[in-house]
Amino acid sequence: MKSKNNSVGIVKTQYFTFAEPPKELILESGEKLGPITLAYETYGKLNKEKSNAILIVHALTGDAHAAGYHSKSDKKPGWWDNMIGPGKAFDTNKYFVICSNIIGGCMGSTGPASINPKTGKHYGLDFPIITIKDMVNAQKRLIDYLGIKKLFSVVGGSMGGMQVLQWSVSYPDMCNSAIAIATAPYLSAQAIAFDEVGRQAIISDPNWNNGNYYKTGKIPSKGLSIARMIGHITYLSEESMHKKFGRRLQAKQKYSYKFLTDFQVESYLHHQGDTFVRRFDANSYLYVTKAMDYFDITRGFKSLTDAFKRVSAKYLVVTFTSDWLFPISQGKAIVTALRNNLKDVSYLEIESSYGHDAFLLEVDTLTKAIKNFFNSMEK
Amino acid sequence: MKSKNNSVGIVKTQYFTFAEPPKELILESGEKLGPITLAYETYGKLNKEKSNAILIVHALTGDAHAAGYHSKSDKKPGWWDNMIGPGKAFDTNKYFVICSNIIGGCMGSTGPASINPKTGKHYGLDFPIITIKDMVNAQKRLIDYLGIKKLFSVVGGSMGGMQVLQWSVSYPDMCNSAIAIATAPYLSAQAIAFDEVGRQAIISDPNWNNGNYYKTGKIPSKGLSIARMIGHITYLSEESMHKKFGRRLQAKQKYSYKFLTDFQVESYLHHQGDTFVRRFDANSYLYVTKAMDYFDITRGFKSLTDAFKRVSAKYLVVTFTSDWLFPISQGKAIVTALRNNLKDVSYLEIESSYGHDAFLLEVDTLTKAIKNFFNSMEK
Repeated sequence: MKSKNNSVGIVKTQYFTFAEPPKELILESGEKLGPITLAYETYGKLNKEKSNAILIVHALTGDAHAAGYHSKSDKKPGWWDNMIGPGKAFDTNKYFVICSNIIGGCMGSTGPASINPKTGKHYGLDFPIITIKDMVNAQKRLIDYLGIKKLFSVVGGSMGGMQVLQWSVSYPDMCNSAIAIATAPYLSAQAIAFDEVGRQAIISDPNWNNGNYYKTGKIPSKGLSIARMIGHITYLSEESMHKKFGRRLQAKQKYSYKFLTDFQVESYLHHQGDTFVRRFDANSYLYVTKAMDYFDITRGFKSLTDAFKRVSAKYLVVTFTSDWLFPISQGKAIVTALRNNLKDVSYLEIESSYGHDAFLLEVDTLTKAIKNFFNSMEK
Repeated sequence: MKSKNNSVGIVKTQYFTFAEPPKELILESGEKLGPITLAYETYGKLNKEKSNAILIVHALTGDAHAAGYHSKSDKKPGWWDNMIGPGKAFDTNKYFVICSNIIGGCMGSTGPASINPKTGKHYGLDFPIITIKDMVNAQKRLIDYLGIKKLFSVVGGSMGGMQVLQWSVSYPDMCNSAIAIATAPYLSAQAIAFDEVGRQAIISDPNWNNGNYYKTGKIPSKGLSIARMIGHITYLSEESMHKKFGRRLQAKQKYSYKFLTDFQVESYLHHQGDTFVRRFDANSYLYVTKAMDYFDITRGFKSLTDAFKRVSAKYLVVTFTSDWLFPISQGKAIVTALRNNLKDVSYLEIESSYGHDAFLLEVDTLTKAIKNFFNSMEK
């Protein structure tokens, strides 16, 4: 743990369990799921009026640990630590910040790696397909449990942004404001395609064993690693890859003329794949990417404009110029649909070469924008 | 076979064998390879002066069969049939068109699936790493064999374009003109990354068996299929995928809420993967993608401008606006470097939504451009 004045310090992940049978959560598919545990963390203090709560929702492989450290010896802070803390974008001196994990994941919340109480075994593929709406419905139960009637804001990037859109549509009266970063009203065909290839890599790995690998001692690490490598290419831009790696060779001046790792970009991808398999469950990767593919905020509505009709949140939509996974056209579509409904929406297009990853990297610009946005709400 | 006036008709693949030991071809790696067989086809007639020969070089998974049909019952013509034939862009009434396969491939030329004469077994990974320069050096032997001192033109798209650049640099006196379509002076970090993930998918397939699968009866079809799916995403553009598939569902009105093929884009990719494994060798995929990764026309030169110093061919460079695998910036870099040397170069940027695949699809625009280019040479 680095000693910093603007850190939230030592934090602890908490767990909220609900939907105990027979009161299971009814999923969008019609299936029932329960009991459900949600992992979450909170930073700062909830005020008396319970009006200062900000819900942070995370991307594909994120978790509840968004800020601070888990122990004094912990070297790595939460995934959005540069945005959450005293004086930061999500200022814990003013706001009570909640970060909720998603159902279907593998970071402490109920997912395919959890034990199915009906069988006493890991769910595996018996886990029901979940959607972004299901994730949000579970989070809503957490917010109810915390006694919060209305969130000051709900905020997220990438798949987190999808949850933000869903929150503002499903629970309009519970969202004072919403910040949707590097996201889309529905996943593009290209992004679905990348997800599907990643899933194929996992299910083609013999260790996957139809999802039953939890007790075999062999995880589908090769397949999951390939899926992660594909993901990483889509998170960067051609420009950022060029700047970061170019055609630089790995620890050699000459080509190996063998099937070795010649280029630094190859080494980077291998490293990303290798470290990922140690922290993420392959089945969760299948479920969460499927939830992203299924996400389409217009489902059940006539149009995107129609979908946003009931929104009451004041909106901030942010896109990044080099993000080709969630291109600016998709962010602009959200803005247009909100404006068609005469909603209060601010739009910020950030010039960045970082690609989709920019939502985690453009900290200064995002901080400024979010502070301005929150200040404008207080006026 | 369709009866068409502008078809080259029934054609036959021919084979040229050279580099018999002890006169093997010395590869860029320093390894020796021989004997080498090159598959090729020709269309039209070589004139007395032997001055009307056009060499067509193909992309990653192409072959020598560029035009016409192999039999009367053959339903599918060669891969560039709409460009080669009487009156077409490569007019066989005027030109003698040669299409040469590449070494390292699996379409009749010597590659990893060939029998290694030293062992009597399939080469597998004993096949040496080959480069674009090696491919071109082999083709040069074919052109010598055909008695052609100078090609009227050398033409190719994608990896074919890399061979075009290499031809004009390695054998400047043999190229009257050169047409480089949707290509690059060196592969980008992003494209290397995609290639590497494809290779990882192949070598992670247990059936790959360290490259020794030719006699096991089990080919690494899952890995190769995944590699092909990744490739296909990069050949299309986000726009063309959106137009072609959008979020349309496959044979159902509703989500399956299962791990089934819900979206048409998934079904398309599966189909592309499945058909590819029936026609292409997995080891060849490793070797040919590695050759692309290694390609860098500036190697051994001070700069791209320096690399093109000796070029004497009149050049046509073509790019497509939505091609993100070989973006227009890379085509423009070729043009700039040629112009820095005061070479005769025409540049055409074609507005197209087809992505990298445009080089096979924008037939009308390409035909017009190539005819104009050839006409300007005859003046």
